[in-house]
Amino acid sequence: MKLIEDANQQVLARILEGEPRLVDIVPARQVIPALRERMILHAGPPISWDRMCGPMRGAVAGAIVFEGWAQDLPTATKLAAGGEIEFHPNHHFGAVGPMTGMTTMSMPLFVVENARFSNRAYCAINEGLGKVMRFGGNDASVLKRLAWLRDVFGPTLGKAIRAAGGIDLKSIVARGLSMGDELHQRNLACSSVFLREIAPWMARTSTDNAVLAECLAFIGQNDQFFLNIAMAMGKAITDPANGIRGSTIVTTMCRNGTDFGIRVSGLGEQWFTAPVEMPEGLYFAGYSEKDANPDMGDSAIVETIGLGGFAMAAAPAVAGFVGAGAPSEASNFTRSMGEITVAQNPEWTIAAMDFAGVPTGIDIRLVVDSGVVPVINTGIAHREPGIGQVGAGVVKAPLACFQQAIVALARDLGVS
Amino acid sequence: MKLIEDANQQVLARILEGEPRLVDIVPARQVIPALRERMILHAGPPISWDRMCGPMRGAVAGAIVFEGWAQDLPTATKLAAGGEIEFHPNHHFGAVGPMTGMTTMSMPLFVVENARFSNRAYCAINEGLGKVMRFGGNDASVLKRLAWLRDVFGPTLGKAIRAAGGIDLKSIVARGLSMGDELHQRNLACSSVFLREIAPWMARTSTDNAVLAECLAFIGQNDQFFLNIAMAMGKAITDPANGIRGSTIVTTMCRNGTDFGIRVSGLGEQWFTAPVEMPEGLYFAGYSEKDANPDMGDSAIVETIGLGGFAMAAAPAVAGFVGAGAPSEASNFTRSMGEITVAQNPEWTIAAMDFAGVPTGIDIRLVVDSGVVPVINTGIAHREPGIGQVGAGVVKAPLACFQQAIVALARDLGVS
Repeated sequence: MKLIEDANQQVLARILEGEPRLVDIVPARQVIPALRERMILHAGPPISWDRMCGPMRGAVAGAIVFEGWAQDLPTATKLAAGGEIEFHPNHHFGAVGPMTGMTTMSMPLFVVENARFSNRAYCAINEGLGKVMRFGGNDASVLKRLAWLRDVFGPTLGKAIRAAGGIDLKSIVARGLSMGDELHQRNLACSSVFLREIAPWMARTSTDNAVLAECLAFIGQNDQFFLNIAMAMGKAITDPANGIRGSTIVTTMCRNGTDFGIRVSGLGEQWFTAPVEMPEGLYFAGYSEKDANPDMGDSAIVETIGLGGFAMAAAPAVAGFVGAGAPSEASNFTRSMGEITVAQNPEWTIAAMDFAGVPTGIDIRLVVDSGVVPVINTGIAHREPGIGQVGAGVVKAPLACFQQAIVALARDLGVS
Repeated sequence: MKLIEDANQQVLARILEGEPRLVDIVPARQVIPALRERMILHAGPPISWDRMCGPMRGAVAGAIVFEGWAQDLPTATKLAAGGEIEFHPNHHFGAVGPMTGMTTMSMPLFVVENARFSNRAYCAINEGLGKVMRFGGNDASVLKRLAWLRDVFGPTLGKAIRAAGGIDLKSIVARGLSMGDELHQRNLACSSVFLREIAPWMARTSTDNAVLAECLAFIGQNDQFFLNIAMAMGKAITDPANGIRGSTIVTTMCRNGTDFGIRVSGLGEQWFTAPVEMPEGLYFAGYSEKDANPDMGDSAIVETIGLGGFAMAAAPAVAGFVGAGAPSEASNFTRSMGEITVAQNPEWTIAAMDFAGVPTGIDIRLVVDSGVVPVINTGIAHREPGIGQVGAGVVKAPLACFQQAIVALARDLGVS
């Protein structure tokens, strides 16, 4: 159908022509004016408190205390359960967040600008590993780190990014793919290359070298630091590609720990959801499948633009980390994702596949026809609030989302 | 022969048990007291001025001016040609140097300590790309950069390294191998990871943030920065493995642009040389094979410990850069080097080969029996003095060196 093909070419061009630059770090309320007191943005499609999973409830309670809307976690939980907190998806406000994906008014957000289409997208700063809010952590250590990110790290790094005139992200991702990153469960290379670029600017703009050293060490000790930047980049790239009538290309994939949700360009803001699946993967010592929460987070935005599970061939080491089989077979994942995508990204290539581009542009028709669903490299959170990460794995997008979307699209186009 | 097998096991253990740490940067004369006025250490086996290739002569003239032993390049060349300069291999003084490998008294050297055997090894600081002394460059820009390395960068980075209590190198190499480095023509990952580790210490020990920013940028803009550290590491690892009677394992491979030289553990300090070969590779725009100098440098020390061409499988992108065929076939090089080595390094593994260790311990018997010679990833210098790098490629160690060595070893052991 020519309408569909034309629409898809347009969507694809918009995805590939994006020019994402990291331009700032600012408090959330400054870039999302609608973000009020007692309002929390979360990962995934819309969800109410009563359907939220354990770690998301834990993160919500922590975020409430962090913002000072309650004095302690039990009071915070009561507040949320009593309907006193307004919940919205990050995606409704140009934002994304990993795992629980908490975004509240005072949190510092990365600002990524897509220079080609003059739009912006946002993501909070990666907190590091261990017990952290994105995995449902909410104790004093978690809140203390968030306060440091807000009061010290965010302002320090923001100043450097502004002084640098922004940081081009496509080139960092291209380098990272040649250095073993797939940009979801492995961001070591991009985090390191980002530090190479920003460190001189941090030195030029810093007045307190103890703070400077602390900030450099924070980036240097967090192998996943770049993930949140990549996520904001993914959002900045996909937003202009959404809402092209007739297009069957997926512009959003995300999950809230209860539901998996997708959006398709031709159907704009409409969500198609299905129960989220359980990741299959490897667990940290002392944990097993029975501790795991179903999959969670807006981070699947990176798979939506051809990274993560789609770029597994670039990162054979990650195949082992997420329990996806032999590292030497990592390229099978990338080849398989090539069956459900309409193009390769000529700027993001994989050396081990003789510089083939990452598979880009998930077509719901190809997914439904083949039964091959997108694979997503993901972290695994404990199902109880307050505990944190217990492993990493691979999860599949539920086929039902794509089936619903194709039916809705056919109806929209008057085909049935 | 049991004597040989036992000796080789001992040599191998010494190579694998090394604990290399970067502990300092100091002026060469401080760690090599024998390094006097009008004395120059060069790459490769011993060579006199009359047999030196163009780029080495260019570098020698530049080094003489840099040290103030002559006012200009023509006078310096006359001095060298007139026998007024004493030449020795780096390898005779615990040092190594890439390409021309110039080491003179005032140059700042990395100091790598092998904690397991309490020995130390040295290498000058990588100057960056373009027109540089290691490729025979010797104009004012080259000498100015060397002066800055001596007066500003070396002292600044040295202070940070000492404050950090030294930097463990094996772990950085392990990470680099999982990030697309083979540690010879590709050191982007290790350079970046090194910067991650040292940047906070540079901030803690720096008093002038303009200098700090300049030093951070110098490391950050040089994708080959880590090579010289890796070379000093190779020297620190192989030195304790040399001189074990009966061992057929190679402890040195190097070249001076005229001769290729090897040393074998069982024969200690004895050199076995043969005419060096021409690299086969790719040339920068405007250059071709007719501009190329034969292969050069002590950098093949990294192949001696299982990196560079031996670890090609870790770095498919480098196969393209050095013109070694399809990136997807990079692992063929590593497999082939496995035929002439006695072990794999369990600490340095290659994800794409399901975490097989890099082939380590070149056995001259296996080389001579199979006819398979070590492959070395190398830069290509212009054959004229003063021009610089014109390409990158792969070069083969000449079989004759190994044949001579096996004859000498047989004689030494009374076998013939």
